[in-house]
Amino acid sequence: MNAAYHRLKARFARIALLGESQAMLHWDAAAVMPPGGAAARGEQLAALSGLSHELLTAPQVAEDLAEATAEGEWEGANLALMRQTHRRATALPTALVEATARANAACEAVWRRARAQSDFALVAPALKEVVRLQRETAAALAGATGLSPYDALMEGYQRGIGASDVEPIFAAYEQFLQQALPQAEAIQASRPAPRPLTGPFPVPAQQALCRAMAERVGLDFDHARLDESTHPFCGGTPTDVRITTRYSADSAAQALFGVLHETGHALYERGLPPAFAHQPVGEAAGMAAHESQSLIIEMQACRSDAFLRFIGPQLQASFGGGAEAYDPANLAALWRRVERGFIRVDADELTYPAHVILRFRLERALIGGELEVEGIPAAWNEGFTHLLGLTPPDDARGCLQDIHWYDGAFGYFPSYTLGAMAAAQLMRAARGAEPGLDAALAKGDFTPLRDWLRKAVHGQGSRLGFQDLLRAATGKPLDPSDFTEHLRGRYLAA
Amino acid sequence: MNAAYHRLKARFARIALLGESQAMLHWDAAAVMPPGGAAARGEQLAALSGLSHELLTAPQVAEDLAEATAEGEWEGANLALMRQTHRRATALPTALVEATARANAACEAVWRRARAQSDFALVAPALKEVVRLQRETAAALAGATGLSPYDALMEGYQRGIGASDVEPIFAAYEQFLQQALPQAEAIQASRPAPRPLTGPFPVPAQQALCRAMAERVGLDFDHARLDESTHPFCGGTPTDVRITTRYSADSAAQALFGVLHETGHALYERGLPPAFAHQPVGEAAGMAAHESQSLIIEMQACRSDAFLRFIGPQLQASFGGGAEAYDPANLAALWRRVERGFIRVDADELTYPAHVILRFRLERALIGGELEVEGIPAAWNEGFTHLLGLTPPDDARGCLQDIHWYDGAFGYFPSYTLGAMAAAQLMRAARGAEPGLDAALAKGDFTPLRDWLRKAVHGQGSRLGFQDLLRAATGKPLDPSDFTEHLRGRYLAA
Repeated sequence: MNAAYHRLKARFARIALLGESQAMLHWDAAAVMPPGGAAARGEQLAALSGLSHELLTAPQVAEDLAEATAEGEWEGANLALMRQTHRRATALPTALVEATARANAACEAVWRRARAQSDFALVAPALKEVVRLQRETAAALAGATGLSPYDALMEGYQRGIGASDVEPIFAAYEQFLQQALPQAEAIQASRPAPRPLTGPFPVPAQQALCRAMAERVGLDFDHARLDESTHPFCGGTPTDVRITTRYSADSAAQALFGVLHETGHALYERGLPPAFAHQPVGEAAGMAAHESQSLIIEMQACRSDAFLRFIGPQLQASFGGGAEAYDPANLAALWRRVERGFIRVDADELTYPAHVILRFRLERALIGGELEVEGIPAAWNEGFTHLLGLTPPDDARGCLQDIHWYDGAFGYFPSYTLGAMAAAQLMRAARGAEPGLDAALAKGDFTPLRDWLRKAVHGQGSRLGFQDLLRAATGKPLDPSDFTEHLRGRYLAA
Repeated sequence: MNAAYHRLKARFARIALLGESQAMLHWDAAAVMPPGGAAARGEQLAALSGLSHELLTAPQVAEDLAEATAEGEWEGANLALMRQTHRRATALPTALVEATARANAACEAVWRRARAQSDFALVAPALKEVVRLQRETAAALAGATGLSPYDALMEGYQRGIGASDVEPIFAAYEQFLQQALPQAEAIQASRPAPRPLTGPFPVPAQQALCRAMAERVGLDFDHARLDESTHPFCGGTPTDVRITTRYSADSAAQALFGVLHETGHALYERGLPPAFAHQPVGEAAGMAAHESQSLIIEMQACRSDAFLRFIGPQLQASFGGGAEAYDPANLAALWRRVERGFIRVDADELTYPAHVILRFRLERALIGGELEVEGIPAAWNEGFTHLLGLTPPDDARGCLQDIHWYDGAFGYFPSYTLGAMAAAQLMRAARGAEPGLDAALAKGDFTPLRDWLRKAVHGQGSRLGFQDLLRAATGKPLDPSDFTEHLRGRYLAA
């Protein structure tokens, strides 16, 4: 730990505080900003990005990195992450970073209208500019990191796993799904239809329930907010986490499971090691790791047989009606229902990976130059039909549904399915380590699961890459068979 | 317009965007932030301030300012404002700036307890340190600007008017008040007491009315928000203005007039010249100019006979009850009531200047060294008794009531009364230019007033200092007789 390393820590703390400011401005834009603020917001974010980039690429940083020494596993990992961040940042000229921030903000604003009108042509010019800048970025990062252009983008979201790991995993899942999906559908069809929850589901009652359940999972509202936005997300900072959801008066479960999902993300942020706050090693380990935390709460814990026994009476207290519909077996039939559909965020956990596989293949082709923006709608519809046997009736239910590409996020989509797979693997390990885990969930007690995750995942910061984090927590790198076993148990057991 | 000037414009745009980001983070902290976010928010704001200061004081700026040329009135004024901002920023050593921030924060914290306990001695040591540093700051700024120390502080809040202008204006007002106040009280006492509005005033109905009235005054919610906070304020940015208020179920008028006041500030921001957005000359002309815009809406327009004819039926529609209480003459008697009191923020428009005059004299003496901190309570009570004929029963209702000094704001108080006087002068000029102005207000139509203000004030940015702005808009520098005429018409007409 020499003077150069201390200078670097001070500098990276400043960069992190700029990043926190940007996170708050992003939350504001999504949750509360009036539409007329969008143009200036884009400029504000671009200015903060530009300054952050300059702090990171100043000549002093290269000098300090050359001199810096750090002792111990954590400080050593911190210094290694500084070097990696610096390598990636110095690959990108300031003008490119600022142009990207501006183009992304502009495209996102147009996308909101384009999706509402199901008009891909409206957003195509803005998206072309976003893609052009992403290709330029990918090429520059590839040069600096020695990775392929697409992997170089992926690394920006999740360190420690690449497209060559992902491709065979996804191909195998595609094969698994070709058999498993019709089989699950047949089993489901052979059973009596579940009783629907009939409502009404007044939004204020949903809000109260969502808040109470988020608290039960472990979110402390002295350090968090729950708001509404079109596209639910978890933002903010470790001591001020901002989660959002979307309420529909027609559904008891949609907003609730959205909140449980975002609460999983929020717990990760809240559990990051405070001793390394505002340092690279104190951040979350990446987007796939993050998604594993949202899905272990939403999918693994909160749709488990155990938790369904707890949540039924809670729902009945909120929305009334007869007890039959709130029976755990009925809730399982309602909420663990397989159904081919067009919308990723509405997909069940069996078909969800197909949505991701499609996007992974298209975005890889877009970055590689084998696909152009104009070709997206046709390629989307063809790929979707191939994977799930359905053709989207319009682009709003096809290639316009997700914000990601329109906001400049390429290389991010694989994280969802890597996260789902990691969640199954971590849940299996947690159950092994905490034999009382399911009994606790059945009482609405998340303590055993949360404590294990805090130690095995949250408290680790980004000391380890994706595969190493799983290895340390579960004894093996990503093993998709834990996920397919989980699915077999839940959907294919006759 | 040479290359140096273009570099400066780019740099000042960045500084302005950092300022907008800070404004949004301030709004967030006041309106929506959970308490646990406070520590990190402080660090985020400090990081943004530090970066902004570094951008402004980098050696390149002095070089560019030495070389820069700009043609035309607007670009010339912009360059002059850049020089002024730079001169002020470089006049203060970093150690002084940091010591001031620490002393202000420490004093403010102690002040909260001292006010609650009405114990001036408790906060006196911390305030002594604040005053010591303000004297040092004033001396450094005086050296750099050629102004007197107190004027150099005042300039930080309002350019283009100084204590030597203010002193005779305030002395004349003191004389006016000695006669006018007993006279207004006698007239008021001779009239039957107004009927109170009896309520209830449900908060949702107040919120809807406040929003509708803000829109009617001219606020477009595509570029604005209205929220709640403990201390109402107008924040945000010109294309995304954030106003707040505080609702009380006991009062129909408190939140409403608060919103009308903040709407006046908001219209100023919304009307700033877009061609100079993010440049010094594109900002508002100062705190006194800003207060003139809130008060011309709240006090001049919205308590006018004309507007009271419009607002009565609106209130009745919102809160019900008999028509008598909503009669314009009754509303005038309720809302244009003179009453001597100890608290500045509760004061009517006739006595309000007395509160400001007292503070102006004391803070000037404090900066000049003719008054020491220990002498404040006695000087306050003596001055207050002299001005308003009442003696504060304790320091909580005396020299401890306002945050300003305890937070290191010296030179700001005159802005309130300069703004009130300028509002009267501008209203008179607007009525001269727009003969249908009052007939429009009586129909709830603010178009003539707003259009005139947009041209005469808002669209001028900070091209002109306070006196020159008034000269251009009304043909004369600040003329307090327009304000006293206004008060005579409203309070002294039998």
